[in-house]
Formats: sequence, C-alpha cells, structure tokens
Amino acid sequence: MTGVVFSGDFDKVMAAFIIANGAAAMGQPATLFFTFWGICALRRKPSQPLAKTVIEHLFGWMLPGGAEKLPLSKMHMGGAGRAMIKGIMRKKKASSLPELIASAQKAGVRLVVCTMSMDLMGIKAEELIDGVEFGGVAAYLGAAQQGRVNLFI
Amino acid sequence: MTGVVFSGDFDKVMAAFIIANGAAAMGQPATLFFTFWGICALRRKPSQPLAKTVIEHLFGWMLPGGAEKLPLSKMHMGGAGRAMIKGIMRKKKASSLPELIASAQKAGVRLVVCTMSMDLMGIKAEELIDGVEFGGVAAYLGAAQQGRVNLFI
Amino acid sequence: MTGVVFSGDFDKVMAAFIIANGAAAMGQPATLFFTFWGICALRRKPSQPLAKTVIEHLFGWMLPGGAEKLPLSKMHMGGAGRAMIKGIMRKKKASSLPELIASAQKAGVRLVVCTMSMDLMGIKAEELIDGVEFGGVAAYLGAAQQGRVNLFI
Repeated sequence: MTGVVFSGDFDKVMAAFIIANGAAAMGQPATLFFTFWGICALRRKPSQPLAKTVIEHLFGWMLPGGAEKLPLSKMHMGGAGRAMIKGIMRKKKASSLPELIASAQKAGVRLVVCTMSMDLMGIKAEELIDGVEFGGVAAYLGAAQQGRVNLFI
Repeated sequence: MTGVVFSGDFDKVMAAFIIANGAAAMGQPATLFFTFWGICALRRKPSQPLAKTVIEHLFGWMLPGGAEKLPLSKMHMGGAGRAMIKGIMRKKKASSLPELIASAQKAGVRLVVCTMSMDLMGIKAEELIDGVEFGGVAAYLGAAQQGRVNLFI
Repeated sequence: MTGVVFSGDFDKVMAAFIIANGAAAMGQPATLFFTFWGICALRRKPSQPLAKTVIEHLFGWMLPGGAEKLPLSKMHMGGAGRAMIKGIMRKKKASSLPELIASAQKAGVRLVVCTMSMDLMGIKAEELIDGVEFGGVAAYLGAAQQGRVNLFI
C-alpha cells in the first residue's frame, strides 16, 4: 500500500495513517510519501534556530508546526472542531495522531518526504521527526509500482 | 474498483458514484467505503429519535443530514452553487445523487460504512439508508487488495 | 499511471502533472482524466466568442480561466499565496504549471476531458488547449484497468 499524503488536514492525515497501519498489521508493506502541505504533519520544533531566508521563515511560520497543529478539512472553526474531535478520540480511547505516527514507524511503514516540496517550502530536515526518508517523484513511483493499493490523500 | 469516500462534498460523492456505477456497468465488482465526512452521504432522517449523548446530538445536528444536503467543495455560496448545479442536472436529465445511489445499490455496488467513524461521530445504523454494510479498515483493505482501481475520494 | 483530476486547485493540478511527467520519464504510459473543477486547468481564452446559454456564460465567468488562474487549495489569500509560490518556483527554476502541461503533452501523457462535465458546466472544446482528447467514465475505467497506479486528485 502506498499513499501520497498531499493534504495537511488533520482528518485526512489521520485516515492515511489508519490505512497504512492497517496494511502493516496485515503484513503488507506500506509507504507514505509526504508532499506539499502533507509535510507539515511530520514537523517538530527544531532544537536550534534554522538558517533560512526571510520568505522561508515566513512560510515556516504560516504552516502548521506538526501533527498536533493540523487544521480539520471541515468544521475547523478556529480549532474548536479539532478540539471537539480530539476530545471524543480521547474519551473513546482512540489513538491520537502522534501515536498513530509512532505505531506506523514501529510497524515498519516507510515515511518518505518529498525533497522538491521541502526545497520549495524551505523546510529543513532538522525540523522533521526522526526516522523519515527523503526522495523525489521517482522514489514514489518506484514504490507505487510495487503496490496494489495506491492512494492520493 | 474500490473507493474510500472520505469527503462529504456533493460533487466528490457524485464522482464516486459515477465511477462505481460505471465499473458495475462494465461488469466489474465495485465497493465504496464511507468514512469520516463521507458517511453523511448515506444519512437519512431516522423514523424515531435516537439515544445519543449531548455531544453526539450536537455532531449530528452540525453534519449534513443526507445526500441532498451535502455542500459543494467549491462555490457552495450558502447553497446557491449547489442549487445551480442541481438545476442544470435536472435540465440535462442527469441522474440526481439519490438516483445514483439507488442505481449503485441495484447494480450490486457494495456500500460499506466505517464503524470506527460511526463510533467517533456518534452516527447510528438507524440513521443510515437501508442496504449498507458495516466494516473497519481491514474490510476496506481486503476489498482493495482484490481491486485494480483503488481511489481515495 | 492514471489520475482523475477532479480538483481545480493549482497545487493539486501541479502534483498531478509532476507525477504524470515522472511516470512518462520512466517509460510508463500515463493518462490524466479531467473532470468537474479539474477541467479549468485546461481552459484558455477562445479566439472568438462562444455560443452559450446565460447560465453557461455565468458558469464560465465564475470558473478559473486556465492553468495560470487556478486558486491554491490552502492559503490562497486572494491570490497572494499563489503569487508567493509562483515567485519561489521561478527563483528555484522549477517548471511552471503551463510548462509542466506542455512537457506532459510532449512526453505523450494523454489528457482526456470528461464530456459529461463539459456538458454540465457548458464548457466547449474551443475553450480548451489543443491536443486534448474527449471521453466519458468508460474511457477512464478502460485506462485505469491497464494501470497500476490510479489516483483521484
């Protein structure tokens, strides 16, 4: 199973990880390829300030700073919709998005970040979570050619 | 053919059913798996009030109540865009979304509703149209492994 | 590789062409099937006024008039976000969307436009770029059945 995680919406990224984790649990290799807004799901606060141009800093500041900060695709309502859904997930004891990401990495799901998007958006490897790989469209297509279930999310 | 119907947008759900109906007409098995906002496309007014928590009632009230009430992904304009498109569809004698759903069911397209999403959003089986199945991510992946055309909509 | 280009967002259409061009560069046949909002990516100013109904003119005027005018799916900000991204792309010497479309056509990527959507939205062949094909859902499914990587964008 492969997925292009183009969207940076909380709910879509969650769907991507639920499917990838499901595939891994069924013993199928899974690869998620993060591009454009999707990369924001893998961001974290860097341990030290990064050397960036003014426009890269501006972009970095406008984009969500990690899995906890992604907006909902619908009913975001300034964060109220997301807070409501997170509250329900906690109550129902469903895995949070950071937990889903950690499970995916533990289960061997490959997380590949699109280097062209990183370059365009000025995102540095130091501001991404550990354990991700880097690649371009050829890396994605190589994995997708092996898969039966290839999604654009 | 399989489709994850994640989106609850009128136009995207319509595209999902047009592709699924096309596949069925060509003699190919088709399964649509409804998750997150997509489930709203299969809602209907329940015949009697449902036992729900306050937050589930709130969610149920905020979410579109069926195929006729889904918003457009673009140019919704408070319903004016959708009314315009529905008007054109009627004039051109194109099938309406409820008709597309009925044709799909008649043609044997499987409509599977994600039980995890139902649980999270507090949606009950009684408020969904007849003839749907229920399943989780394993059910989806099982169907997708058999398919050649697997879409995330 | 096939892609249903349903979205008319600048960033998503760009992703579709980057993947299709990548597939073509790897010697794989690629087909993009443009439907609903996606068709706007292939529009151009017609050389002479078109015979359309009032509602078709209204639709034509509301929809983006070509690849250069598509909105961003996020942070569009009345065009400022798109201008920012286009500026970065120019600076990084990345191909523009019209260049990606031209490369795709040169590399033999098939661009098929959904005739049902054209009919619904009142879009005429004369307002689309040269070299596109026309087809319905059966044409799409025929191509997708041959592909391994079938995306809904």
